[in-house]
Amino acid sequence: MNIYLDYAATSPLDPRVLKAMEPFLGPSFGNPSSPHSLGEEAKASIERSRVEVSTLIGSEAEEIFFTSGGTESNNWALYSFTLLEEKKKGHLITTTIEHPSVLEVAKFLESIDFEVTYLPVDGKGRVDPEEVRKALKPTTVLVSVMHANNETGVIQPIKEAEIPLHTDAVQTVGHIAVSVEELGVDLLSISAHKLCGPKCVGALFVRHGLNLPPLLRGGGQERGLRSGTENVPGIVGFGKACEVAQEALVKESERIRNLKVKLYEGLMGILRDPYLGFSTLA
Amino acid sequence: MNIYLDYAATSPLDPRVLKAMEPFLGPSFGNPSSPHSLGEEAKASIERSRVEVSTLIGSEAEEIFFTSGGTESNNWALYSFTLLEEKKKGHLITTTIEHPSVLEVAKFLESIDFEVTYLPVDGKGRVDPEEVRKALKPTTVLVSVMHANNETGVIQPIKEAEIPLHTDAVQTVGHIAVSVEELGVDLLSISAHKLCGPKCVGALFVRHGLNLPPLLRGGGQERGLRSGTENVPGIVGFGKACEVAQEALVKESERIRNLKVKLYEGLMGILRDPYLGFSTLA
Repeated sequence: MNIYLDYAATSPLDPRVLKAMEPFLGPSFGNPSSPHSLGEEAKASIERSRVEVSTLIGSEAEEIFFTSGGTESNNWALYSFTLLEEKKKGHLITTTIEHPSVLEVAKFLESIDFEVTYLPVDGKGRVDPEEVRKALKPTTVLVSVMHANNETGVIQPIKEAEIPLHTDAVQTVGHIAVSVEELGVDLLSISAHKLCGPKCVGALFVRHGLNLPPLLRGGGQERGLRSGTENVPGIVGFGKACEVAQEALVKESERIRNLKVKLYEGLMGILRDPYLGFSTLA
Repeated sequence: MNIYLDYAATSPLDPRVLKAMEPFLGPSFGNPSSPHSLGEEAKASIERSRVEVSTLIGSEAEEIFFTSGGTESNNWALYSFTLLEEKKKGHLITTTIEHPSVLEVAKFLESIDFEVTYLPVDGKGRVDPEEVRKALKPTTVLVSVMHANNETGVIQPIKEAEIPLHTDAVQTVGHIAVSVEELGVDLLSISAHKLCGPKCVGALFVRHGLNLPPLLRGGGQERGLRSGTENVPGIVGFGKACEVAQEALVKESERIRNLKVKLYEGLMGILRDPYLGFSTLA
């Protein structure tokens, strides 16, 4: 018997996810841009998924833009305020431990004369906010720091300088509670296949008011920010995977809260025991 | 009963395509980059699809790079020799009738000071090669002309000037015989969902020796030219759709050849008839 221990590379489709996708691999194959019933059905389905994805990260549905996955989301975030914005040079801050889909774009931008600062991280993958503050320049256009520990830590210096903050949350969303409000990020990357959803679908959270240029241009899908016929079955599966992950997160946090209460009560019982506990507590 | 007449927008999955995809939506969910049996199975499957796609357009398998669809393929081709190449300005030649995923990139490039020539087309969507010749400049980096009529017409002037030629063949591949050799193109865009394959998967044919920079960077998939975890079920479905289309094309061309012979023989019979035919043929 094989035991699969490579969930960080990819995860199997949750059976509930596959079930949700099936109609869209069969009779419900319409193009969301088509002005007939099949098109309308497809359009409505991707809008429901948008709500489910946004719920998982605590954003508004309109702040979710579907992409072809984590790599595209990360690339888009990094290209947007550099290569796609204007032709003047800018400065980017990131860390030494980012995923290649961040680091390789950073290196490419360096090769064409953008400036990049790579900050070190501590043993828990955290960046010292003071290091971020020191690295900021008048030319800084973006800070991109991987989401690893339910915090980015860098938000205060960024907020003061009004520089967009991107976080790659591909490895955390669906596994730990993630809130774009608590993180204070402006851009956040998600990938469906890391949370038992389908491959080749993801999203970029783009905070209201952030004037992000598109990377993929064309038919104007995703309100002009990401063109290309929508991956309807993939997006529907992504939405379902987020719904499933959301439920699991709630149950999991209840289970952990219950364990914490049990531990606390157990400890207090011992501590109050005149024979086993400390005398000062008796 | 509804009759679906919107195949140019998207097509239903061929049942054989869905059948080929099913294992990869279930137990065969591995990441092709993973060095274990599930990963190897996924890797082998996408390589088989690469052969099937290449067969349909008469290229070598190694010249096929999988993308998230026609929009990404077209965008990639246009960004590559302009935005992603070097920071000096270049000149691009295209036509007035391209798909938005070509035209919108061309317009964006114009907005950041690249130069674009939009050539007119005749009633059959063809560009006059003489017009291409006249439009060429020393700064021209790419010519992009939609494939509409089993010919691009523009290859001679381009060949002489050694400028890469891209063609958007999203609406033709699988419907008429397409040969990259006959067309003489260097880059060709394909989309699976236009030929009864899945949404959100496509390819860019990149001729051997063409030094194309990647658009999506990261984990180095697709031999470094297109990063991002591969859409294994999508790519498998795309391969199957190409195989199915290839068979249909052969049958269709046989059927048409037989009709042609029948027509010819019928006409010759009439023409040779002393009462019905022309006397000179009798």
